[in-house]
Amino acid sequence: MKFLHTSDWHLGRQFHNVSLLDDQKVVLNQITAYLQDNKVDAVVIAGDIYDRSVPPTAAIELMNQFVETVCGELGVPIILIPGNHDGAERLGFASKQMKGAGLHILSNFADMVTPVIISSDIGPVAFYGMPYNDPELVRHHFKQSVSSHDDAHKLLCDEIKTHFNAEHKNVLISHCFVDGAIESESERPLSIGGSDRVSHEHFVDFDYVALGHLHQPQKKGEEYIRYSGSLMKYSFSEQHQKKGMTLVEFDEQGFRSATHIDLVAPHQMRIIEGELDTIIEQGKTDPNNEDYLLVRLMDKHAILNPMDKLRAVYPNVLHLEKPGMLIGMEQEMASAKLARSETDMFRDFFLEAQNSELSEEQDKAISDIIKQLSQQ
Amino acid sequence: MKFLHTSDWHLGRQFHNVSLLDDQKVVLNQITAYLQDNKVDAVVIAGDIYDRSVPPTAAIELMNQFVETVCGELGVPIILIPGNHDGAERLGFASKQMKGAGLHILSNFADMVTPVIISSDIGPVAFYGMPYNDPELVRHHFKQSVSSHDDAHKLLCDEIKTHFNAEHKNVLISHCFVDGAIESESERPLSIGGSDRVSHEHFVDFDYVALGHLHQPQKKGEEYIRYSGSLMKYSFSEQHQKKGMTLVEFDEQGFRSATHIDLVAPHQMRIIEGELDTIIEQGKTDPNNEDYLLVRLMDKHAILNPMDKLRAVYPNVLHLEKPGMLIGMEQEMASAKLARSETDMFRDFFLEAQNSELSEEQDKAISDIIKQLSQQ
Repeated sequence: MKFLHTSDWHLGRQFHNVSLLDDQKVVLNQITAYLQDNKVDAVVIAGDIYDRSVPPTAAIELMNQFVETVCGELGVPIILIPGNHDGAERLGFASKQMKGAGLHILSNFADMVTPVIISSDIGPVAFYGMPYNDPELVRHHFKQSVSSHDDAHKLLCDEIKTHFNAEHKNVLISHCFVDGAIESESERPLSIGGSDRVSHEHFVDFDYVALGHLHQPQKKGEEYIRYSGSLMKYSFSEQHQKKGMTLVEFDEQGFRSATHIDLVAPHQMRIIEGELDTIIEQGKTDPNNEDYLLVRLMDKHAILNPMDKLRAVYPNVLHLEKPGMLIGMEQEMASAKLARSETDMFRDFFLEAQNSELSEEQDKAISDIIKQLSQQ
Repeated sequence: MKFLHTSDWHLGRQFHNVSLLDDQKVVLNQITAYLQDNKVDAVVIAGDIYDRSVPPTAAIELMNQFVETVCGELGVPIILIPGNHDGAERLGFASKQMKGAGLHILSNFADMVTPVIISSDIGPVAFYGMPYNDPELVRHHFKQSVSSHDDAHKLLCDEIKTHFNAEHKNVLISHCFVDGAIESESERPLSIGGSDRVSHEHFVDFDYVALGHLHQPQKKGEEYIRYSGSLMKYSFSEQHQKKGMTLVEFDEQGFRSATHIDLVAPHQMRIIEGELDTIIEQGKTDPNNEDYLLVRLMDKHAILNPMDKLRAVYPNVLHLEKPGMLIGMEQEMASAKLARSETDMFRDFFLEAQNSELSEEQDKAISDIIKQLSQQ
């Protein structure tokens, strides 16, 4: 029994005012190509399908194409939950009417305790989806004391476990921040000050836990408690992360293995650091010159239209930093300041404060005092 | 064979800053109650399900409940098209996955020529849904000369007719403005200057045409070419319209009858005209004092806080007009003007223009001239 675990697609996301939709389409096509070549029993998406609760029409159409290909043409069921970026009610419209066609959108607490049962060579596997919820919503719905994400997850996991069937293997799908796992810059915090962390201990009774929210692929606590990571890089600081999806395999005993399968966006996100001339020279032969770039110019002198010059060889420079120039400027400002003597500065101050210039005697007195002080 | 034809629900609409969602829910419950008591083969909604392409979450949830009751619990299929207020792509997400459960959202040209076939006691009936489209979209899609809504409808109807099956009765669902039909104030024009009108002649080959867009129930051209009208009143000028849905009956020959079935919103929309004291007196015993009201105050003198006084008896006064007071004010202004003589007004003008007062001689000269003129 095999299924794909993926998450954090953020369809419709903008990156430095560039739409990533075409890139996302290419990566989704890599997933459908994999499904065409390899038999899997289900595709799990652990939240943040869209980047916003009201996604742009083009993002909805892209998701619709994916669904039609995977559920419709390939006959592979999709099981998904809304994440903190998605609008659960909006995503959940007519979800009961979709189930028959293999599209399972688990968007509320009733859906959470009604697992999707996938029959397989190792018997039935139950997929429980925990839609993303603020602790307040959980407290309100279950009328129990819940003050943190950790409380909420404990309660929801206990609730789910009362529905366990001894004949089934159990998969949990959740969108949360497991304590101790590694953050990336492109995630939107669930709450402020660390109260969003949940213990992986709540999850140990499941055979596999398909997590979403954190954008770096990783396991936490156990081999079978995993983040697949995001569909692609969504910040320059993720330049060295390997994005992909996780192929999960079960045998009669339950979890057997989790394998990372690379997904490669057509434009990589990279940071290039150096002086303008060097970067331009290297760009002329760079085979990946269309990558999305953050350029850190280390030149110390001002440059006219550096963006235009860079884009002549690297058309997708999306952000420019000039730490070198800043250092240059600071030094210039510092030396400009030193060029004026303390006496000059006092003369300026006196003019400003008294609206008249120092008399000759006053000027001499001040000069003498400053001279004495600087000799001390 | 029977089906219900309804349209122009505008779920989520605001009326003078009041949400109509609770009222809409009551009316939708009247539809589901009818379906519980009476067997029909399908429910047709001819566009404008929502009031906006991005409807509020609560409107989506209301629609979801309706779908779950009708398709889910009652097992009656729903066939709908987007109108000019709906977002076709947004509404059409995963529509292929819903069909098996009896929810048919026909949101594009491919759906349009793939009729929903409903089997019935008189044989199969084909429902063709023509999603609302601007002429530009039709021209672009079919690469043919189309400059008006009429051109577009002719082309789309001809396109549909090539798919007719002689064994089937044929129903068309369309959202358009049939030439000669009666407008209401609450419709949003499809285009400016009358170019939105389409001839009913394109429709005569269908057995029934379920129209949406115009909010007044009416037939046009033939008994079987009909607007069901909107779910409820959406402007005060519709106060005398009877809102409802249309029950359509077919026999072996095709169209047999169309019957209007009343739908009654909990708050009616009414215009009350009169003087404040009279209206307040009548409100004390008005059994429908919670209706949504436009009040036209005919009093000719200024009244302090008339809205507060009215709402003490009519809590849902949503709009206040004071044509009486305007007449009073105009008269006052006119008499105020007359109280100043022409000589006074010239004195004001001279002061303004010359920044000095008239001398005694000047004043006398002007007074004499005005006296002479007024005696002519």
